[in-house]
Amino acid sequence: MLPTKGYAAIAVKEKLQPFSFERRDVGPHDVLITISHCGICHSDIHQTRDEWGIALFPMVPGHEIVGTVAQVGTAVTAFKVDDRAGVGCFVDSCRTCTACREGLEQYCDGGTLWTYSGQDKEGRITRGGYSSQIVVDEHYVFRIPTTLSLAGAAPLLCAGITTYSPLRQWGVGRYHKLAVVGLGGLGHMAVKIAKAMGTEVTVLSASEKKREDAKRLGAANFAVTSNPQTLTKLQGYFDYILDTVSAPHDYNTYLNLLKTDGTMILVGAPEKPTPVQAFSLIFKRRRLAGSLIGGIKETQEMLDFCAQHRIESDIELIPIQQVNEAYERVIRSDVRYRFVIDMASLK
Amino acid sequence: MLPTKGYAAIAVKEKLQPFSFERRDVGPHDVLITISHCGICHSDIHQTRDEWGIALFPMVPGHEIVGTVAQVGTAVTAFKVDDRAGVGCFVDSCRTCTACREGLEQYCDGGTLWTYSGQDKEGRITRGGYSSQIVVDEHYVFRIPTTLSLAGAAPLLCAGITTYSPLRQWGVGRYHKLAVVGLGGLGHMAVKIAKAMGTEVTVLSASEKKREDAKRLGAANFAVTSNPQTLTKLQGYFDYILDTVSAPHDYNTYLNLLKTDGTMILVGAPEKPTPVQAFSLIFKRRRLAGSLIGGIKETQEMLDFCAQHRIESDIELIPIQQVNEAYERVIRSDVRYRFVIDMASLK
Repeated sequence: MLPTKGYAAIAVKEKLQPFSFERRDVGPHDVLITISHCGICHSDIHQTRDEWGIALFPMVPGHEIVGTVAQVGTAVTAFKVDDRAGVGCFVDSCRTCTACREGLEQYCDGGTLWTYSGQDKEGRITRGGYSSQIVVDEHYVFRIPTTLSLAGAAPLLCAGITTYSPLRQWGVGRYHKLAVVGLGGLGHMAVKIAKAMGTEVTVLSASEKKREDAKRLGAANFAVTSNPQTLTKLQGYFDYILDTVSAPHDYNTYLNLLKTDGTMILVGAPEKPTPVQAFSLIFKRRRLAGSLIGGIKETQEMLDFCAQHRIESDIELIPIQQVNEAYERVIRSDVRYRFVIDMASLK
Repeated sequence: MLPTKGYAAIAVKEKLQPFSFERRDVGPHDVLITISHCGICHSDIHQTRDEWGIALFPMVPGHEIVGTVAQVGTAVTAFKVDDRAGVGCFVDSCRTCTACREGLEQYCDGGTLWTYSGQDKEGRITRGGYSSQIVVDEHYVFRIPTTLSLAGAAPLLCAGITTYSPLRQWGVGRYHKLAVVGLGGLGHMAVKIAKAMGTEVTVLSASEKKREDAKRLGAANFAVTSNPQTLTKLQGYFDYILDTVSAPHDYNTYLNLLKTDGTMILVGAPEKPTPVQAFSLIFKRRRLAGSLIGGIKETQEMLDFCAQHRIESDIELIPIQQVNEAYERVIRSDVRYRFVIDMASLK
């Protein structure tokens, strides 16, 4: 077993603190990664507070993991020592169900093994990237292209793929008009990626505050949703809406901005159910869809796409000692646009 | 102007009563149809009670209209006197918007002109099929194949196309598993049509009462939704769910019965918004969609499909004098499966 340092929530809602634990030994198919950076995702906060009811403690969060390969198992073919490598939201799946065979491991019927707060086949609790190192089967490890900085690439492994996957799935591209609802960690990645896909992007935001940022990130338009006139003007305008907001909000207002056959895709999950007016969908034959991160193959494709288009996350780099303060700021939406922990600070 | 007899709600929530009015003269592109039968749709009741807020009185309801051509305008090419003809939910549209040009007149940007309780370009209120005759532009008139009975074909013009259109739009066919929620006017047509498309149909119903009917109509399976075990067993089973229920009900229960990438299509519209749990859509990348009747070309295609497969509606034929009693029975879901008014009774 491999002694590992990290930060953990020892119990529900407790502040994160230094925590020592062990990783499994490197098996034949495993890659040992020395973690250089890990992004902070809002779901880390949901999980440490057990807001989804699936938390296992002590919990080492973190699923936007990048670093360098330190050791490989005897059967590993895709990685060698010193390669740049990344790990996203999951580290295993059944590998035999239809979803797994189709490269949709995130929808695995047997149950996707989440990178942290999951339980592997041996009954061990998985622990995430707020730590010095991680051991993962090579099939669930990504190559990080050298044109991307490690720190700026880390958030691609959740925020990046969460927005890239539905845009690809629905074929969003040139000639489409896309609205991005919410300009946070997910939203700012959506703007960059959709822009690189040739799409006309409009950011819909609750206030004026992020107008300049939206333009800088590549949005063609910016509209303040608190202004009723704006919404009237945009009725039936969009082919797609990507809704990244997890705070409670009215879906029907946005649905009415879609054209005939338009689709609104949810990647943010408000805690409570949101009322949907059937007529908002029936008239104009609209669709409300969900999307969850992305599969292994698609995540690698996203990393390569981002490398090609020089897309990284806008980040604030922090030492791990500031993680609890960072959590408070994420809750206040006071980050542009992703905190990334510099894991060198852990030593 | 053409003196016409009918039944109307003189004001909101009033019982229907005999009502005389005038149809426009037959213009160059118009067809005059002597109405033999008209189906009773639940939306007729919603409208006479102004439950959608768009009612115009006195209101002559009815948009499942069949009969025989009595006269044609000088420029009419598609119909001649004595042809069997039908009229559905709308009688005009702008004809120039993208939707109209794509044969999706029901989503016309300029505003579809509904068969009744609409207002035409000249400001006249449209009046529906609970009447002796109707004048309609030939572009909005359907051919009723001779292998269908007129009475059994009438409900195809709303209940038939409302279920046929989403099944075609989403490509439901062989190798798909479809659930039909609710076995009423719409649901019973959905079962017949989907069965003819080669689909495995499961009827989901609140009680055991309709098990035999479901099988007789062509359903492979029948499941009672009040039984929690049934729902557990069917988790992730369906490719598509067609939800025909307009009473309040829980969407999330049904969404969880969908496979990865499965779609639940709403054709029934509960009056109030229905809470949707984002996670029901995000996990398994599911979709919630709406669909509204069908376009002109697709409605004719549906009629021809039904003729080919000998599909008619199960009906209870009534004289128009029983229309108010029939409304009460529709509200109690006490009809198998569609009331059709024999318009000969109007004389």
